[in-house]
Amino acid sequence: MMDYGRVYNFSAGPSMLPQPVLEEVRDELLNYRGSGMSVMEMSHRSKVFENILHEAEADLRQLMTIPANYKVLFIQGGATLQFAAIPMNLMKNGVADYLVTGNWSKKAYSEAKKYGKINLVASSEDKNYSYIPDVSDLAIAPDADYVYICENETIHGTTYQELPNTKGKPLVSDQSSMFISQPCDVSQYGLIYAGVQKNVGPAGLAIVIVREDLIRKDLDTKVPTYMRFDTHAENDSLYNTPNCWAIYVCGKVFKYVLGLGGLEVMQRMNQEKAALLYEFLDSSEMFHGTVEKKYRSLMNVPFVTQSAELDAEVVAASKAAGFDNLKGHKSVGGLRASIYNAMPREGVEALVNFLRDFEEKHIA
Amino acid sequence: MMDYGRVYNFSAGPSMLPQPVLEEVRDELLNYRGSGMSVMEMSHRSKVFENILHEAEADLRQLMTIPANYKVLFIQGGATLQFAAIPMNLMKNGVADYLVTGNWSKKAYSEAKKYGKINLVASSEDKNYSYIPDVSDLAIAPDADYVYICENETIHGTTYQELPNTKGKPLVSDQSSMFISQPCDVSQYGLIYAGVQKNVGPAGLAIVIVREDLIRKDLDTKVPTYMRFDTHAENDSLYNTPNCWAIYVCGKVFKYVLGLGGLEVMQRMNQEKAALLYEFLDSSEMFHGTVEKKYRSLMNVPFVTQSAELDAEVVAASKAAGFDNLKGHKSVGGLRASIYNAMPREGVEALVNFLRDFEEKHIA
Repeated sequence: MMDYGRVYNFSAGPSMLPQPVLEEVRDELLNYRGSGMSVMEMSHRSKVFENILHEAEADLRQLMTIPANYKVLFIQGGATLQFAAIPMNLMKNGVADYLVTGNWSKKAYSEAKKYGKINLVASSEDKNYSYIPDVSDLAIAPDADYVYICENETIHGTTYQELPNTKGKPLVSDQSSMFISQPCDVSQYGLIYAGVQKNVGPAGLAIVIVREDLIRKDLDTKVPTYMRFDTHAENDSLYNTPNCWAIYVCGKVFKYVLGLGGLEVMQRMNQEKAALLYEFLDSSEMFHGTVEKKYRSLMNVPFVTQSAELDAEVVAASKAAGFDNLKGHKSVGGLRASIYNAMPREGVEALVNFLRDFEEKHIA
Repeated sequence: MMDYGRVYNFSAGPSMLPQPVLEEVRDELLNYRGSGMSVMEMSHRSKVFENILHEAEADLRQLMTIPANYKVLFIQGGATLQFAAIPMNLMKNGVADYLVTGNWSKKAYSEAKKYGKINLVASSEDKNYSYIPDVSDLAIAPDADYVYICENETIHGTTYQELPNTKGKPLVSDQSSMFISQPCDVSQYGLIYAGVQKNVGPAGLAIVIVREDLIRKDLDTKVPTYMRFDTHAENDSLYNTPNCWAIYVCGKVFKYVLGLGGLEVMQRMNQEKAALLYEFLDSSEMFHGTVEKKYRSLMNVPFVTQSAELDAEVVAASKAAGFDNLKGHKSVGGLRASIYNAMPREGVEALVNFLRDFEEKHIA
């Protein structure tokens, strides 16, 4: 068991945060660094909060080596609001190409269809989204305003190994469940966004990284002011009161990951953790991963036994053993271990040991 | 000075929270009541978080005596997103009547104009929004879908003493800067909403209390899913990941106010605090309130000296004396003391003493 009686929490999100970050937050809770107030009580127009905001942005820019011609926006409403905001902001021709590789890209695709002509240029629905289609030569529409992917599907546990050939169109990527888990060449994208509640911080915030030339002023006048990227870009994410608390905690996480050595180190740690679990699954007779090996996510690991009954038995036993949130999503079934940045290696080792014991006892 | 070196923070929002609430939050930060995790790390689909959500709603319902035919929704994006969501959701005829009594109702009015025919049925712009117009017999449009007010104008420091005669149309009220500061007969309204960051909790959450018959399913298909009231109503505010942290802290504040004795007690405390400051302003030769007495807010108290230079001098001296955020908004000038629920009486007494001393020294 961890310090403070904390459990290994395999939730798909919201999910674990680094313990040192939580300890700092606790210590600063009633009086942030001599300001005389909690971060929850600060005017968002105050110098002290502006410093928090600017430092968070600067640290994220350093972490991801974000080029100067990209804006970083902190917007409420999660990925769900972005599903509408992206077509509203980026469509000039009213056309976009979507790749559907799981529940989240499907939701984004359905929402986008309200606002224009949306082409489905690839799908892995035929095999319950257990792989990523070949993206090397897609039928990109000549007038497509952008090409959309969900780069890591949280529910189905797949991840892109290479980015689609967009034939010159801006690539838009939902990185919610893989954000800052590995190095990312931002210049390959038109827009990257992430709900922060999986790999970065508390729920209630999406981070949008968008190339400046894609931020338009000539939008349909019916686009809500809050949903316009130019609203947030021109006001440094302070057009209205932002989710100050989430920005504060995310900032601490950025600093923590920088302190570990940045995204290369983070990726190596994530690869090692995932390998522990995948190697066990590949050697097990009882448990099997549900995703084609090539497309396995480092973050979300779905797996099943031979039967739904046995799945349920494992979930119940895991809970009793102090592991939380291992039940798989209903659209895949079985179990799912989300092992984001903040899941300690010891948590994955403990899970593998538990699963191995369960299997041995079951066979015996 | 307060415990923990905390200051009296007169910010218009985000603003002070009750110290006992912050202490509880600190104590639960790494492990919420034996759950083994922080509230920031909990799945929003977990039993433990659902309990937090349901308890927060139940406590708010008790505090405001919310009738059973009203839904309580927890939505991100602040009042700013609601400025668009309200006309998008409530307009059937495409017509609404707005009363403009300050910056916030003016912003709501401007945003609503994107979506229909919006009538300006009353305004106090002629005297820089220093009063509330007569609302007993307004020219309500026969086909108006609703009548809109901002019940307490944060910047101008005015508040309605009686609600408008809406001639049977649903009344929509922005209560952001007065929410749970006094008893409220919810049945008088079609919809009440509030950004929580002034009187209730950390920024990043709006609470919408809406009469069920006003929640429609036959909306324009272009309304973003996240902005539809039915999306949140049908999913118990869990359509997507909500701002779990803000809901948690708001829930604690509801319980704290219930513990004090509810909204009658809260109102008496607020009246007493405001009276201290207004009585001083009325007796002062240097400082003067900017609002017609009848319409003075209990929450936001703007005041000025004879000159902008002297105003600035007072603000600087107040900061040096350990008071924070007393500078007035640029559209009114001077100073503004926001004395929400969580501002201790001692804070107002200390401010009055400071202002009295300043005046005496200045005259001497």
